[in-house]
Amino acid sequence: MIETGIAFAGRTGVKVLAMEPGYVKLMMPLEPNLNHVGTMYAGALFTLAELPGGAIFLTTFDASRFFPLIKGMDIKFLKPAATDTTVEVRLDSERATEIQNVANEVGKADYEWECELTDANGQVVAVASCRYQLRSIKPSSP
Amino acid sequence: MIETGIAFAGRTGVKVLAMEPGYVKLMMPLEPNLNHVGTMYAGALFTLAELPGGAIFLTTFDASRFFPLIKGMDIKFLKPAATDTTVEVRLDSERATEIQNVANEVGKADYEWECELTDANGQVVAVASCRYQLRSIKPSSP
Repeated sequence: MIETGIAFAGRTGVKVLAMEPGYVKLMMPLEPNLNHVGTMYAGALFTLAELPGGAIFLTTFDASRFFPLIKGMDIKFLKPAATDTTVEVRLDSERATEIQNVANEVGKADYEWECELTDANGQVVAVASCRYQLRSIKPSSP
Repeated sequence: MIETGIAFAGRTGVKVLAMEPGYVKLMMPLEPNLNHVGTMYAGALFTLAELPGGAIFLTTFDASRFFPLIKGMDIKFLKPAATDTTVEVRLDSERATEIQNVANEVGKADYEWECELTDANGQVVAVASCRYQLRSIKPSSP
């Protein structure tokens, strides 16, 4: 679902390297995402930083009761990304429970995390603050 | 060059509606960029907000002496984008001259602008603060 569920993401060739409750690691390949100077286009780096929102949602939240929205992102590009690039995001289960409880009570809950995008040499090429909102499918109050 | 020079951008189907010194208007079509809930994927909106950086560079700065980098972007998603979406960016010639003068003197100059992404009904679906840097191809001091 993460690799091809959104055609836009599918066209980037992004790969899920690990995906489990509270943890996801994704890889964006360089070649389909080259810019005009031979490094990774900023839009592919944004996409790599954004997709963990969906992946963490799928493994960590109750998809029968909630859905996620992206509220915003502040992304800083630190170095050109000249290799395949990875991102890891962790969300601990206590924090996930807290977010779901708020969304259950008031219909929505904002949450965010910082993530680093890392090239094949271990260099951090970008950092992002990703802001999401969990929405309750049905409000708890009738 | 803007529509297809970067394969990633080409795959989105983005179109240049206007492009002249100090002004650019681009359109991101909905259909190739749908997410899993039938609105425009955030990565396509990011790309629409980012590409004016290259377009304004090409029309407004001296490409024989400078090149641009994206330093970062803070993008806020306000409403789902359920139609083709456009962006307009203006950079007045005095400000452009000032930026080029700084880059010429010290080798680089940061600049930024705010832009709005607007759907076909005139609704602003996202706002972005886009941060770029103009770099001199050859440092002025030997």
